[in-house]
Amino acid sequence: MQNTLLRISYDGTAYGGFQTQDNAPTIQAEIEKALAVIYKKQLRLAGAGRTDAGVHARGQAANYQAPFKIDPQKIPFALNALLPGDLVVTGASEVAEGFHARIDAVGKIYSYTIDQALHPQVLKRLYSWHRPERLDLSAIAAAAQLFEGEHDFAAFQAAGSSITATTRRLYRVQPTWLPDEEIITILFEGNGFLYRMVRLITGTLIRAGRGELGLEQIAAAIGGSAKTAVGPTAPAHGLCLEKVIYEPTPAADH
Amino acid sequence: MQNTLLRISYDGTAYGGFQTQDNAPTIQAEIEKALAVIYKKQLRLAGAGRTDAGVHARGQAANYQAPFKIDPQKIPFALNALLPGDLVVTGASEVAEGFHARIDAVGKIYSYTIDQALHPQVLKRLYSWHRPERLDLSAIAAAAQLFEGEHDFAAFQAAGSSITATTRRLYRVQPTWLPDEEIITILFEGNGFLYRMVRLITGTLIRAGRGELGLEQIAAAIGGSAKTAVGPTAPAHGLCLEKVIYEPTPAADH
Repeated sequence: MQNTLLRISYDGTAYGGFQTQDNAPTIQAEIEKALAVIYKKQLRLAGAGRTDAGVHARGQAANYQAPFKIDPQKIPFALNALLPGDLVVTGASEVAEGFHARIDAVGKIYSYTIDQALHPQVLKRLYSWHRPERLDLSAIAAAAQLFEGEHDFAAFQAAGSSITATTRRLYRVQPTWLPDEEIITILFEGNGFLYRMVRLITGTLIRAGRGELGLEQIAAAIGGSAKTAVGPTAPAHGLCLEKVIYEPTPAADH
Repeated sequence: MQNTLLRISYDGTAYGGFQTQDNAPTIQAEIEKALAVIYKKQLRLAGAGRTDAGVHARGQAANYQAPFKIDPQKIPFALNALLPGDLVVTGASEVAEGFHARIDAVGKIYSYTIDQALHPQVLKRLYSWHRPERLDLSAIAAAAQLFEGEHDFAAFQAAGSSITATTRRLYRVQPTWLPDEEIITILFEGNGFLYRMVRLITGTLIRAGRGELGLEQIAAAIGGSAKTAVGPTAPAHGLCLEKVIYEPTPAADH
C-alpha cells in the first residue's frame, strides 16, 4: 500500500471542473483513468478541493491509495505520459497512511487575474477577465483589506452549497497592479474558502473599483447576510488555484 | 479612400499562419472576411510579414485600402466584434496613400520563450518550448552576442525561400532568464528577418546552451554557409511577433 499526494496543474478551459461528472471531461476522471493504466486497477483520487468548470490550477493537490509502491519521483512522468497536454502532474510524494488531501489541508492560495487593456490581450484571454473600464485601484485595495481576518462569509457563498459553518480566516487579499502589462492580479490566501467565495469577493471588489460600492456597504455584507453588496460572481476563467498548503509538510519523498 | 494600418494580435495555435491558403484558417482570411462585412466589399490586407502556422503575435501590422473613411479609433471595435476571440485588432491609424505595411517596415521585434520547468507549465504550454534540461545560460548569452550586428544570415534561412539578398542587421539578441518562473525569453530585434531565421537561431542557441556547439563553430556559420552549426528549427509555438517598427511613425490618428 502506498498513499501518494499529487501536485496537479491544469488549464481548466476544456474541463467540466475537478470532480467527476457524467456530461463533461473532468480532472479527476482523467487522472483516475491514467492511474488505472499504471496500477492495473481502478483507484479513487481524493482532491483537496473541487474547482468549478473553467477554473485553472497551478497547484491543486489530491491523494490516492495504491496497491503497490512506485518511486514517487517517477509517478509524475508516468502519469504525464498518459494525460492530455492541458493537465500536468508536477510532483508526487508518499504521505502517511491516514493522510487526506482535503481534510489535512490547512490553507489555500488562489489568484484572480483581470485584464485592463482596452482590447483583450489575446495570449492572456483564457486566463484573465477582460474589464477595460478604468478602475479605482486604491478603492479596490481598501475594500480588499476589509476581507482580511476571520469573518463569517455566509454572504459570500453561492447558492447550491450545503455548508453551514461559514466562518473562514483570510490571511491576505492582495491586489497587485502591473501597469506595463495592464494586469491586476488579486491573491487570496486563507484557511478555507466557501463555494465561489473568491469569485464573489472579486466581483465585489470590481464594483468597489467602479465606485458602485462604498467601504461601509462592503463591511456590512461581511459578517452579515446583506447580499445586495455582494458580487457579481467573476467568471471562472480568471481564477487559478495556486497552492494547497499542508502543515507539517507531508512525509518526505523516499 | 482611406489607407489604414492595423495593429494585430493573435494566438496562432489554431491558424495555418498569417497568409491566406486553401487548407487552413489564416489571420489574413479572417480579417479580410470581417473587412468585407464592414465595407460591403472584398478588400485586400497586406501584412508586414507572414508568420508561420502556430506562431503568435502581440504586434503584427497590416494595411488595407478602403473605399470610404471610418474613424480609426472605431475600427478595432468594429473588427473585434466580428473576429474570433483568438484574433484581436489592438489599434488602427490612417496612413499615407502609398504606405505599405511590409515595404515601409524598418524593423521587427520577436520573442522566443523557453519553459525550463521539469514538468511543462500548463498555462504556458501553448506559448513556450518545453526544454527541461539544464542549459548553460552564460554560453547562450555569449553565443547570442555573435548574432548582433550586420551579417549575411544565408545559413540561417530555411529551405523554401526565394530570397537571395540575405544580409540583415540584428540590433539585439537578448536572452533573459526569470529563475522564479523557470522561463528563458530571447528577444530579437532587427531590420529584417529571413524565413525561419529566429527559430533557427534559437535552435542554435539551445545547442550552445547544451554544450554541443562552441562559439567558434557558431561564428563560422554566421556569414558562412556551414549548415552543420545551424539549428535545429525551434518549434513555432514558442515564437511571438512582438512589434513591427515604422519610422517616422505613420500619419497620426485623425
